[in-house]
Amino acid sequence: MKIINNLNCRVHSTNVQDKKMAGAKTNITEKKFKLTFFPFKMSIDVQGGSTILEAVRQLQLPLKASCGGKGSCGDCLIKILAGNYKVKASAALSQELIDKGYALACQTKVTSDLTVQLPQFEELSIKTVHDSQFFESHREKISGQFEVNPPLKKINLNLPQPTIDDNYSDLRRLQRELQKKYVCTRIKCEYSVLKKLAQIIRQNQGKISVVFSNLDSLPTILDVRGQEENQGLYGLAIDIGTTTIVLQLVNLENGKISETVFSYNQQLKCGEDVIARINYAQKPGHLEELQELIIQSINNLIAKAITSARILAKDIYLASISGNTTMIHLLLKLEPNYIRLAPYVSTINQVPVLLSRDLGLKMNEEGRVHCSPLVGSYVGGDITAGLLATPLYGHSQKVSLFIDAGTNGELVIGNKDWLMTCACSIGPAFEGSGIIRCGMPATAGAIENLKIKADGQIEYRVINGLKPKGLCGSGLVDLLAELFYGGYIDRHGKFNLKKDKKRFKETETGLGFLIEKADNCYWAKDLFLTENEISNLIRSKAAVYSACSFLLKKLGLNSTQLENIYLAGGFGQYLNIENAIRIGLLPDIDRNKFHYLGNSSLLGAYLILLSNNNMQLAEEIADKMTYIELNTEPQYMDEFMAALFLPHTDIDLFPSLKGELDVK
Amino acid sequence: MKIINNLNCRVHSTNVQDKKMAGAKTNITEKKFKLTFFPFKMSIDVQGGSTILEAVRQLQLPLKASCGGKGSCGDCLIKILAGNYKVKASAALSQELIDKGYALACQTKVTSDLTVQLPQFEELSIKTVHDSQFFESHREKISGQFEVNPPLKKINLNLPQPTIDDNYSDLRRLQRELQKKYVCTRIKCEYSVLKKLAQIIRQNQGKISVVFSNLDSLPTILDVRGQEENQGLYGLAIDIGTTTIVLQLVNLENGKISETVFSYNQQLKCGEDVIARINYAQKPGHLEELQELIIQSINNLIAKAITSARILAKDIYLASISGNTTMIHLLLKLEPNYIRLAPYVSTINQVPVLLSRDLGLKMNEEGRVHCSPLVGSYVGGDITAGLLATPLYGHSQKVSLFIDAGTNGELVIGNKDWLMTCACSIGPAFEGSGIIRCGMPATAGAIENLKIKADGQIEYRVINGLKPKGLCGSGLVDLLAELFYGGYIDRHGKFNLKKDKKRFKETETGLGFLIEKADNCYWAKDLFLTENEISNLIRSKAAVYSACSFLLKKLGLNSTQLENIYLAGGFGQYLNIENAIRIGLLPDIDRNKFHYLGNSSLLGAYLILLSNNNMQLAEEIADKMTYIELNTEPQYMDEFMAALFLPHTDIDLFPSLKGELDVK
Repeated sequence: MKIINNLNCRVHSTNVQDKKMAGAKTNITEKKFKLTFFPFKMSIDVQGGSTILEAVRQLQLPLKASCGGKGSCGDCLIKILAGNYKVKASAALSQELIDKGYALACQTKVTSDLTVQLPQFEELSIKTVHDSQFFESHREKISGQFEVNPPLKKINLNLPQPTIDDNYSDLRRLQRELQKKYVCTRIKCEYSVLKKLAQIIRQNQGKISVVFSNLDSLPTILDVRGQEENQGLYGLAIDIGTTTIVLQLVNLENGKISETVFSYNQQLKCGEDVIARINYAQKPGHLEELQELIIQSINNLIAKAITSARILAKDIYLASISGNTTMIHLLLKLEPNYIRLAPYVSTINQVPVLLSRDLGLKMNEEGRVHCSPLVGSYVGGDITAGLLATPLYGHSQKVSLFIDAGTNGELVIGNKDWLMTCACSIGPAFEGSGIIRCGMPATAGAIENLKIKADGQIEYRVINGLKPKGLCGSGLVDLLAELFYGGYIDRHGKFNLKKDKKRFKETETGLGFLIEKADNCYWAKDLFLTENEISNLIRSKAAVYSACSFLLKKLGLNSTQLENIYLAGGFGQYLNIENAIRIGLLPDIDRNKFHYLGNSSLLGAYLILLSNNNMQLAEEIADKMTYIELNTEPQYMDEFMAALFLPHTDIDLFPSLKGELDVK
Repeated sequence: MKIINNLNCRVHSTNVQDKKMAGAKTNITEKKFKLTFFPFKMSIDVQGGSTILEAVRQLQLPLKASCGGKGSCGDCLIKILAGNYKVKASAALSQELIDKGYALACQTKVTSDLTVQLPQFEELSIKTVHDSQFFESHREKISGQFEVNPPLKKINLNLPQPTIDDNYSDLRRLQRELQKKYVCTRIKCEYSVLKKLAQIIRQNQGKISVVFSNLDSLPTILDVRGQEENQGLYGLAIDIGTTTIVLQLVNLENGKISETVFSYNQQLKCGEDVIARINYAQKPGHLEELQELIIQSINNLIAKAITSARILAKDIYLASISGNTTMIHLLLKLEPNYIRLAPYVSTINQVPVLLSRDLGLKMNEEGRVHCSPLVGSYVGGDITAGLLATPLYGHSQKVSLFIDAGTNGELVIGNKDWLMTCACSIGPAFEGSGIIRCGMPATAGAIENLKIKADGQIEYRVINGLKPKGLCGSGLVDLLAELFYGGYIDRHGKFNLKKDKKRFKETETGLGFLIEKADNCYWAKDLFLTENEISNLIRSKAAVYSACSFLLKKLGLNSTQLENIYLAGGFGQYLNIENAIRIGLLPDIDRNKFHYLGNSSLLGAYLILLSNNNMQLAEEIADKMTYIELNTEPQYMDEFMAALFLPHTDIDLFPSLKGELDVK
């Protein structure tokens, strides 16, 4: 990744001297300077003297400024990685942060080329990298198969020299040898292979290596090289999330994961959730832009992975991609608008195997792209792939529940004979988006775990042990539970001001519960949670619970009949199950029935990459799912309303909490 | 055809005035002028004052100049279509020709932009345009089927509006409707169709028109449009000859031929026969150039046909191409060198269906290209297609012979159970190339038919009734027969000078037989034939006869056992059978057994275009052919040597000529 290397160099060359000298320059407004923003790697030329916030607005990057650019809210915090700039102290920016290179975009004028990081989008630290040990431990725990039997194979052939009595065409001789090793009656050969076939055979005295695919309806020769080149055969497992993209470079000959890389989805600048992206796509040229952004994101990851693994892009022949229905439509530049409009129709669910060159992915020129089959407008290939990576389907007759919770939540109930699924809009409250000001993704500086002690002291654990920057989803779940059971809020989420007066504080956005004081926080700003934000968290948890109870009722089941609950997605990954039940997010059943899956969508994509059987199984799973569109079910709204309490209107649904609730 | 239209305008603006004025200009050598050569449509900028021959040399166009540019041989005759030029009278150029706009390239200096025609390559006049009447009369006379059942179909569908209870994806709803009309379990859909599917369905309220293909291993949707567009469904039948290309635009819905257009193969400038082209391809960049030239030739013909038919290129979805093995390799940019080198191996014989966009053909973006299957290095798809258009295979158990004679000759003997084939090098003697100075293609001005009367007078018929420019193949066969049986040459082809002294004349290239005096000739030059040229003609006829007798002996048959002989290709088309037998080119059997086929390669390509069954039959025919490589058969050389007499060493092989021969 050349850009990132450059970045490292420039960071070191920046110093305080530069910042002070910059102020002395004259005629700065006549010059143009280049601003580059990370992690989006987007650049723009601006007039000297303009603010960084103006550039951010022009590029439509996701950076809030609640106060409208007065320097009071501190929302537009940025970190300057390289370059000279005018920094201005303000109530919302401590000297400590200025010294660390932070600034407020609205208060910072451009006086040189700058490299700027949007701290909200600092490098991800994704924990779930699947290694061989992980797979060993999961071998019996999934619906798919852990096997190295990919739809692409490399086969070495020694073609005999042609003679006058055996002067079949080059292709025919190749096919004949291939058929000795691989039984098939008809073999297709790509045109690009035909163009080099005669020379490759002769330059290598017939000792050739054939890349052979079973992805198309006929077995197909994708490539021919000399055996001596000892060329690699690699594939990609890619999980395209609305927020993040994770890519694994996999050796298709032994199934080993060579690299795991990840980044934000560059589409973030066009909207934070799928509905915002679909709306964005409606203007001319925007659908093209969204596709380009996602392709660019993936190509950057490919470049990073192959540089690190020291292989070539032409060694990559297959990508197995999982993503939600909107992400897949945007990847393929398919009109997404009808996903959003009743009756919620996608263009396609079973995506045919595509050519990587048709999408612009930097792989072998004959590279193939497989997308995990979609189910409906709001249940996508991430769920199909996810189910492949869980034991829900295939290993048991007992009924289990799969929940993939992020900005959208998808739920599947079923067993190997039937599957019923629905999707609900959880919203970004637990996802670290701007709805909750103290919210943040589960990255360095996030409170991931929290407890309010009897004496009112708050204990918490911060990712990477920094001073806290905010709370990620699991921290917010803990906070909500502790606030309720500690008596700081009532069942409606309203503050009980009598409980501990010094914890409540008036803020710009209303009365807030003080989680941590500015002095102890990374950004030197108080961390607090307002009633309005609590209401948002309750709506989010209610969406999940009511979707679950709706599905169960539809099936005539109750939650205790669930054999297992599998939690997938970033939200589920670090969740305190007990607290999730205590706030009424998850049903109150035996805690031993809950299982964390991590990124099951990525694992499913990996399983498909490595096995024809898994690829077929994914289709079977998608076919089997009965998809309920909650948008059109009035009964769901009733369930949702009933769940807008802590833990629920009907506390009999939470028998294990009875003691705690009775005390209240 | 924009270029040709321009040309017409400029021709009319040229007049004698221009020519005279041109000489007066000064400083002409300091200017650059543009020369454009037809029919190759190639241009070059040259310095004023240089000769046209120099430009011809630079462009490597096929124009001879035996005298080395002295203006004496008259070989480099050209016609100036537009522009000013200095014309110089010479012994080799009459005033009559100057007045018609002719000039000698070596004697003509450039003093303005010029448009030049190489007369040797004047517009073709191809006679065999197949019309429906032709097909009716041929219905029972071919191996294939006359049926309109093409592998591409247009199907109108009325998709019901999606509802919340029927909200399958757009593609699934389309497939469901399609399956009601067309029974199949899996249907593929091209990516380009997916990208527009959602909008096309909604813009047309579900009333759509689907173009559907059975060419790939799965039924495939190639296009979707609104029914109201009333879009056409067209295909191309293309015969790519070494010298000429013929293209038919065919309505795939009713099988009607909408246009027939033809042109020279622009590759001609790179060599006249396949070996010359293969040699040319060996230099870097030359293979690419040869492909570009052939694609350009075809694209020019497509443009001409669709302009005339008033359709759009995107309405053309399929091309059925037949050509010899070298032409197909060059079309596909496949290395042709191993066709030429022992053991004569092609890259491919069964060409997969390709995408027109991969070749650069201007058709629908999802257009498909089918090439008639090849048999071996020197028996190509023109023969497979040709056999489809003859009754040889499929209708009879009796054994027949098929001969496609051009620069190369291909022979097939067989019936519906077996086929044996070989190719021989006839050379361009009968093809109007430079080997025979009086030779020319069967175009306007060619003597196509000739008789020497008892009094020594020569009677002949000229195509289009002009003064003769030369003799085409059938004229040369007649001449050779008449010279031999008239006693002007002996069995070795040597002149009998005693016969008619005034007919023999010393020429630049040796003693020649005077066919017509300059005064009566179009080019105002004597038409004559030398002993050396006669020897070339004898070698050519011997090649055909010996290939035939070799095959027959290989099969243990004699010529009288042949039920029929089918003659295809330009050479066979106007041939006087009696004279062809009299010179020993064809075997001496019942004349009623001979049948002219015309351009059977084109007819075969048309049959394949319109019928899946014919496409499969062509593969079956190619598979069935046993290919004998004559290059490696010493017995063939013996047969060839024995045939180097008129009519043959063994005159017992020609019983019907016994009377005539005894007289001699």
